[in-house]
Amino acid sequence: MVQQLASYVAGDWIGPGSAARPIRSAISGKVIAEAGGGGVDFARMLDFGKSVGGPALRAMGFHDRAARLKALALYLNARREALYDLSYQTGATLGDHRFDIDGGIGTLFVFSSKGRREMPDGKVYLDGGLERFGKDGLFVGQHVAVPLHGVAVHINAYNFPLWGMLEKLAPTLLAGVPAIVKPATATSYVTELAVRMILESGILPAGALQFIAGGTGDLLDRLGGQDVVSFTGSAATGGHLRAKPNLLQNAVRFVAEQDSLNASILGPDIAPGSPAFDIFIKEAHREMTVKAGQKCTAIRRIIAPEAHVPAVIEALSARLAATTIGDPRDKATRMGALVSAEQKADVLARAAIIGQEAERVFGDPDEFTVTGDVSRDAFLPPLLYHCADPDAASAVHTTEAFGPVATVMPYRDLDHALALANRGEGSLVASVVTESGDVARQAVLNAGPSHGRLYFNNPASAPEATGHGAPMPHMIHGGPGRAGGGEELGGVRGVLHYMQRVAVQGSPDLITAIADRWVPGAAEVTGPAHPFTRHYDALAIGETIRTKAREITLDDIEHFASFTGDTFYAHMNEAAAAANPFFPGRVAHGYLLLAFAAGLFVQPDPGPVLANTGLDNLRFLQPVVPGDSLRVRLSVKQKTRRTDAYGEVRWHVTLYNQRDEAVAEYELLTMNAYA
Amino acid sequence: MVQQLASYVAGDWIGPGSAARPIRSAISGKVIAEAGGGGVDFARMLDFGKSVGGPALRAMGFHDRAARLKALALYLNARREALYDLSYQTGATLGDHRFDIDGGIGTLFVFSSKGRREMPDGKVYLDGGLERFGKDGLFVGQHVAVPLHGVAVHINAYNFPLWGMLEKLAPTLLAGVPAIVKPATATSYVTELAVRMILESGILPAGALQFIAGGTGDLLDRLGGQDVVSFTGSAATGGHLRAKPNLLQNAVRFVAEQDSLNASILGPDIAPGSPAFDIFIKEAHREMTVKAGQKCTAIRRIIAPEAHVPAVIEALSARLAATTIGDPRDKATRMGALVSAEQKADVLARAAIIGQEAERVFGDPDEFTVTGDVSRDAFLPPLLYHCADPDAASAVHTTEAFGPVATVMPYRDLDHALALANRGEGSLVASVVTESGDVARQAVLNAGPSHGRLYFNNPASAPEATGHGAPMPHMIHGGPGRAGGGEELGGVRGVLHYMQRVAVQGSPDLITAIADRWVPGAAEVTGPAHPFTRHYDALAIGETIRTKAREITLDDIEHFASFTGDTFYAHMNEAAAAANPFFPGRVAHGYLLLAFAAGLFVQPDPGPVLANTGLDNLRFLQPVVPGDSLRVRLSVKQKTRRTDAYGEVRWHVTLYNQRDEAVAEYELLTMNAYA
Repeated sequence: MVQQLASYVAGDWIGPGSAARPIRSAISGKVIAEAGGGGVDFARMLDFGKSVGGPALRAMGFHDRAARLKALALYLNARREALYDLSYQTGATLGDHRFDIDGGIGTLFVFSSKGRREMPDGKVYLDGGLERFGKDGLFVGQHVAVPLHGVAVHINAYNFPLWGMLEKLAPTLLAGVPAIVKPATATSYVTELAVRMILESGILPAGALQFIAGGTGDLLDRLGGQDVVSFTGSAATGGHLRAKPNLLQNAVRFVAEQDSLNASILGPDIAPGSPAFDIFIKEAHREMTVKAGQKCTAIRRIIAPEAHVPAVIEALSARLAATTIGDPRDKATRMGALVSAEQKADVLARAAIIGQEAERVFGDPDEFTVTGDVSRDAFLPPLLYHCADPDAASAVHTTEAFGPVATVMPYRDLDHALALANRGEGSLVASVVTESGDVARQAVLNAGPSHGRLYFNNPASAPEATGHGAPMPHMIHGGPGRAGGGEELGGVRGVLHYMQRVAVQGSPDLITAIADRWVPGAAEVTGPAHPFTRHYDALAIGETIRTKAREITLDDIEHFASFTGDTFYAHMNEAAAAANPFFPGRVAHGYLLLAFAAGLFVQPDPGPVLANTGLDNLRFLQPVVPGDSLRVRLSVKQKTRRTDAYGEVRWHVTLYNQRDEAVAEYELLTMNAYA
Repeated sequence: MVQQLASYVAGDWIGPGSAARPIRSAISGKVIAEAGGGGVDFARMLDFGKSVGGPALRAMGFHDRAARLKALALYLNARREALYDLSYQTGATLGDHRFDIDGGIGTLFVFSSKGRREMPDGKVYLDGGLERFGKDGLFVGQHVAVPLHGVAVHINAYNFPLWGMLEKLAPTLLAGVPAIVKPATATSYVTELAVRMILESGILPAGALQFIAGGTGDLLDRLGGQDVVSFTGSAATGGHLRAKPNLLQNAVRFVAEQDSLNASILGPDIAPGSPAFDIFIKEAHREMTVKAGQKCTAIRRIIAPEAHVPAVIEALSARLAATTIGDPRDKATRMGALVSAEQKADVLARAAIIGQEAERVFGDPDEFTVTGDVSRDAFLPPLLYHCADPDAASAVHTTEAFGPVATVMPYRDLDHALALANRGEGSLVASVVTESGDVARQAVLNAGPSHGRLYFNNPASAPEATGHGAPMPHMIHGGPGRAGGGEELGGVRGVLHYMQRVAVQGSPDLITAIADRWVPGAAEVTGPAHPFTRHYDALAIGETIRTKAREITLDDIEHFASFTGDTFYAHMNEAAAAANPFFPGRVAHGYLLLAFAAGLFVQPDPGPVLANTGLDNLRFLQPVVPGDSLRVRLSVKQKTRRTDAYGEVRWHVTLYNQRDEAVAEYELLTMNAYA
């Protein structure tokens, strides 16, 4: 049965048009689906996203949206066997599914968690700290980020039909922006199934997710300054798309993740036969064979000390020789098929270009074993090349054979190795296996500018290392130059691509109202009772008490010193303290001030305050000497719901002396029961 | 005398070529300079920047480069009279010089200060916190930023010949990237003088600054993925430049700051005659007249409640009528000339387009007074329009008359006002005069996505407010859509445009070596003596002591409670504490733990540790109950030089109980003498 893949447009599923394109299974070679061919109204799609999806998403806060990402992750996770089953048709093995399907779902989990932990329980994200422009703090600045009012168009590559969608969808939805997902047609049947699951779940509001099976028609020509294109694919296609006049004219954001000749360097400190050498070989083998090398982060260039090149070729060839190629549904299979016979032809054509500068030292496309009852048309064995003179070569640094193909090349010293890595003219990731901090630091300073990610591994890190080729949701994924100049993922950084950063300037009162975070100088709200007696829900931002004063005596200081054992000279020795550039003479301990301050504002009885969980940004501003007195201003700065039972209250605390000078300032964290 | 403006190329001054273009004074109309016309070898320029300027800048750290920015600011500040004198020829008044010349120098000061306070005393900038991937912390991630290995090409507009250069030069040089500055030819004689001063100062290394008087020839066609274009000018020119194939193909960063139809909104809460109303009128007047309205941030659209439009027109017209126009060298002059007669013709042509949708209610280009002995050719009076139906209009929202021209338009309610502001389709700044937090918050949520900056003012903030049109170095300057989609300034954010963000992953030891900042899990270095007895210069990153243990008794807790007054029930009442979700029973005060920890590691005698200045990121991880014992691990995390005499040491402090569980963790700050 040939599946008719449909687009999801403004709430309707629209089947393929008259010019639909057939899609073949990578393992049987038979047509299994059809997609595209017209019939999609892109203007309607855009309008629906902007007028229905955007407002619905923006009506929620970051934590609401984060909760939906988690719900989606759980929903898909419960249905992943169905996704696995279908995905075998793309040529992917069970091991490959862990990257595409489990990895995609894991990305939803991480963004959900980051959204709850690192973004506020509200609608305005605060970017960086407060800026002051005058000495009295009457006019201040705060950068914030708010969701764009447009639509995100995600154009994804064929190699990760699920992860490719979810790694963009997670930050987009968390930002509060509706998405239109257009996967590469070749594997779009997997994406379509996942989209159907997501829509069936009812977790997302209408308009948050629309889907294109087939081409994008005139969609990109309709985009404006509030829209975002996030593109993954070849540099040729990316360059063609980003040159569209309306994208340039409207400065439409274009996040691109393109070609990349990723390098892996065997550090000059690593000898063949060592555990680190083995790690190097294992990583190279994994990157050549996972997804049959169809990974934008796969290692294409293996850069080793001249003397160790034969050992690298020998060890890697031995591993490659032991790699079972065949039916991906068979558990013994280590490497499946390329996505199609066309892709195989493309890889072989590029391998031939590399072959003009490098000698093939492992693998033969004309002679290899494929296990199982499958068509051979899309299968290819790993091909390892050796380029003896990488300085004179150019194709090995610029030709990406998007399959199980890599080239080993020698280097003379670390500078040479890094220079070779940089010959890729911008890549997504470079790795270095080294145990030397100096090597790592040089790599960052000299190769960092050309690579979006630098991955270091050695026996100390190997037990938890995530792999050269695995983009983690916490870290940015993207690279300069040839790799497209974009960034995805990277936690909240990835969310900000779908938001506008706004430099907000105004009075402390207005900034407090905008940011839902009390700013010094804003109104101090007087509550009906001591704030420690009031539940989380009752507390207002800016609710403040000012305590009575307590004198600090020399006895207090001496007593604190003997009790705690902190007999630092600035507290104990008048002459030594006075000789210090910071103090007029003996001063009170900083922790004495904190403890006395707590004594001034803490309410002893059981109540809504459950615990003091921490303290941030403490600065001692003025010395406190015997005879000074201390009083405290305590204000509710920010509130963040944390569990079903309690939320975090961030208090702004300022300690003053008897001259009304601030002597210390900090933010105190407590957990407070809701009601 | 006609000045021959020269380009500065690879250490040589190259005069104008045979096809040089004449430059006329805005006030006399006479040719005062010639520039351009060929003769510049752009390949040599690029190569010199990359091979000489870049390495020299990268050999310094952020603080070294920040110090040079301050030295440059002082050097130019001592010579600003010469810059003032020459700048009058551009039509600018003394008041205008405060924005261009003083503002430019001020930007150097702010970036110098931000570089020293917010960037490390080293070569690798840390972006965000540590990411962990496994439970044991054997493999961690850290985003860093390192200088690009290319050249920054700055293409600047004619209206700010000095600020336009310095606002880009400050972040570029702080990043460690060499610059090629190309000002608009019309006022390039002012920029050339400043460049000569900077070069004469000897403050910058060779190759850090090169200069183009005239056109950019084939320079942009030569750029690659390590280069950056930072463009200020018209959307038409920007669109043309960013479409260059090699820029698209190599994903060359293109920071653009283009057209903008900036709006100012009189809040619905503000009545005519009030102090806030007066602030609104003053800001509108200033933005129309400063630099004769030739500011990318000037107010073009004045949006007021329908009922108050007549009052706005009346009050603003009265102020405009009192504005003396004439010789900028005359202190009584409030508004000088446009840059040229051509610019005047362009402004009039665009005003005529606006005039098709709006009625001119103040100013007559054919009848106005110009004081002083000047040519009238480039002078124009302020022109105020009134558009009665801004919903039906389009030119008033899309046509930027780059001179003293603005349009008043009515709104029905706040949503309507914000929708009108958004009709600009992306602007640099919108302002709202309001005293209402709700109005401000709605403005951020609904208009924020279309504006790079939102400026709120009212009588509370007015004494320190920096002005609708003044981009502050602390805040980002740029906007989406029509405004170009770029960002400049914004403190360290502006520096990062010239750096590559790299996601670094590796073992704690390697991350420590890369970042110059100790990461938990990295080696603990044992020094020759207690670290509090060792000077700043002697202390190694990672130098660690582990203290002996101290038992916490119930007596300690009770004593601390009575001494400090902190009798919170979790410390005092077994049953109430046990009923709390966080505690097993009575627990020690957090500040008791901090104080006892200090008692365990502080060295009493005078020595290199001068003061405890603060504490960051304290988190209490486990309750400590009577009978538990406490010990401390204290490690040197990071060092930052602060003055000639002492630097800041950031210590990583972990408190453990007798089961080796971490009970609290924080970063302690001390100031330590160098030697």
